[in-house]
Amino acid sequence: MRLPEGFTAGAAASSIKPSGRPDLALLKVEPGALWAYLATTNRAAAPCVLRGRALYQKRKTISGLVVNSGNANCATGERGMRDDARLAELAAGFLGVRADDVLTASTGVIGVPLPVAKIEESIAAVELTGEIDGFAEAILTTDTRVKLSERTLPGGARVVGVAKGSGMIHPNMATMLAYLFTDAAIPAAELRELWPAVVNRTFNQVTVDGDTSTNDMAVVFSSGLTEAEPGPFWEAVEAVARDLARQIAADGEGAEKLITVRVRGAYDEADARLAARAVAGSALWKAAVHGNDPNWGRVLAALGYSGARLEPEKVQISLQETLIYDGGAVPFNGVALSQAMQAAEVVVSIDLGGGDGAAEAWGCDLTEKYVEINSEYTT
Amino acid sequence: MRLPEGFTAGAAASSIKPSGRPDLALLKVEPGALWAYLATTNRAAAPCVLRGRALYQKRKTISGLVVNSGNANCATGERGMRDDARLAELAAGFLGVRADDVLTASTGVIGVPLPVAKIEESIAAVELTGEIDGFAEAILTTDTRVKLSERTLPGGARVVGVAKGSGMIHPNMATMLAYLFTDAAIPAAELRELWPAVVNRTFNQVTVDGDTSTNDMAVVFSSGLTEAEPGPFWEAVEAVARDLARQIAADGEGAEKLITVRVRGAYDEADARLAARAVAGSALWKAAVHGNDPNWGRVLAALGYSGARLEPEKVQISLQETLIYDGGAVPFNGVALSQAMQAAEVVVSIDLGGGDGAAEAWGCDLTEKYVEINSEYTT
Repeated sequence: MRLPEGFTAGAAASSIKPSGRPDLALLKVEPGALWAYLATTNRAAAPCVLRGRALYQKRKTISGLVVNSGNANCATGERGMRDDARLAELAAGFLGVRADDVLTASTGVIGVPLPVAKIEESIAAVELTGEIDGFAEAILTTDTRVKLSERTLPGGARVVGVAKGSGMIHPNMATMLAYLFTDAAIPAAELRELWPAVVNRTFNQVTVDGDTSTNDMAVVFSSGLTEAEPGPFWEAVEAVARDLARQIAADGEGAEKLITVRVRGAYDEADARLAARAVAGSALWKAAVHGNDPNWGRVLAALGYSGARLEPEKVQISLQETLIYDGGAVPFNGVALSQAMQAAEVVVSIDLGGGDGAAEAWGCDLTEKYVEINSEYTT
Repeated sequence: MRLPEGFTAGAAASSIKPSGRPDLALLKVEPGALWAYLATTNRAAAPCVLRGRALYQKRKTISGLVVNSGNANCATGERGMRDDARLAELAAGFLGVRADDVLTASTGVIGVPLPVAKIEESIAAVELTGEIDGFAEAILTTDTRVKLSERTLPGGARVVGVAKGSGMIHPNMATMLAYLFTDAAIPAAELRELWPAVVNRTFNQVTVDGDTSTNDMAVVFSSGLTEAEPGPFWEAVEAVARDLARQIAADGEGAEKLITVRVRGAYDEADARLAARAVAGSALWKAAVHGNDPNWGRVLAALGYSGARLEPEKVQISLQETLIYDGGAVPFNGVALSQAMQAAEVVVSIDLGGGDGAAEAWGCDLTEKYVEINSEYTT
């Protein structure tokens, strides 16, 4: 996929991943590019997150991004901070910018020192081009496929997004890395102010296993080279972010199905988000979806403990567009509905009957494979 | 197991469970018995919980308890409220007390009307004796074994506890029913005031799958027939509650191992409880325990998102009494530790290095069997 104007990217294999697959990704953007940044709320956040937060406080512009996969450089003490700074220096040297102009990110196993020497040896093999595909592959860990999305605005400006996910995925950033690149010229203050709201409605509504990771971030970069209207711009940004969020959920560890939960009729949007996330994250509902069991009792129970205000007798639940609960049990064809659940996407639509709040959340089914991946391998 | 003075109990099979196993349990206590009650925070709480809460507001004394398993009588609308009232009347008639003197409880599948007629037909088969064992068996659902515990106080008063658990188990009451019976004479006000604190330290620290059920309750009944000192009494109550909590976690759906998490050095007890619960409930850590993988990165990540205040560089983590993290990675024998994890109980001890707060939590490993149970059967 072609990057917007002003961006180049590339990747290399630095042998951090034992598989020898690409694990070093670099991106360069023209001088003066703006950015907006959000990262994990985990208190054991990795050095890259601590550094990124500090950088975001003091710098309005950004020139580069370096990501290594296979090692999270988290819980690695003082050495981890030094290794992260060194990663920035190596990337800055290669990109021909200052270290303070480069954002770092690491994803992978926790608690193992980052072998920076391997990156130093292999970084020269990176070739920067106008395509994002190599970068997209090099940031993956247990993901089974690359995650890309794009939109073009009236006037020609573009928004291109790339992400990785898979495990340790839960609202408030997870093992997730998500980057959006745009050439649309948007004022710095607006970019910083509105990005968190987009993230709250998209990446923070993804849940795979309830585990919030130490290294997550969602960042938007703007080269500002193409004129654009703010309205269509934010629509495109949200569409790309939402698309990536769905791809992350669909490729959750061991997942066979994407679960989409749509809530309306909540007292407010915050309640709607809570309700949607609770259903998408319920281990019991995720297992029922895996087994094609239209067990609405588990949906109702999850709504009940979500924290969202509701009265069970006003709630309506539909599954694959079939009404299955309407303030109480309603008759439905269980065999036909179970067959309808044998699909790549299972959609639960909920009306809480209380107000105007609406939201979506995305998750995946819970499979034996999830347990296998996470009990038999150190990830 | 023999009940304390003043209590009798019994059970019958009413064919609510398709298996034909016992599913109706009754308990009677001498007039004037006191009680303390806590139930689920789920907003889709079942009629038995709504009725029990109201009863607890208006009545200091209690004379009977009826539990049916196999059907939760939840999300059953107006009919559910009537069926629950009818359940109380049937039990009251059998026990020779008023309906307002009987607490009801239902556990099992959600959304199916309770077949009260079956209970009406079979209740006469119940035989009340001084033993709790039949009752203990009849309240089970997907549990694989009965859960009982007892302590005897100086002076001869006794505390006997019975519980069921298995799935939909998470802090703030789950699919869990827990009853403690005692003949110790304790003032009503003290019983009501101190019981919630015991529940917070015991039953609310159990997590199986993060799903909080609609029907849970934890209740203590006192016949008051034997003099007792409050100090030893509360110690015994907490010991029995803790013992039952551990049994519930160890018999979680699909579980092969009990996970015990001990936290100290937290800023306060609330922080310690949050931290312990997050580790006990982490899907990734539960899967690692299943695979005998001493993956402390997952423990640290769970501590980080628990909400407890901490500084990662002050944290110490031990697993099966081996130090594996001390503000950073420390060397340990991974092979030996993996072998030590092949045990019925895996103990994680955490020192947050910040204060005097301490707490425990209990969970179980995440197995392929959990997924199988919850995807292949409607529970």
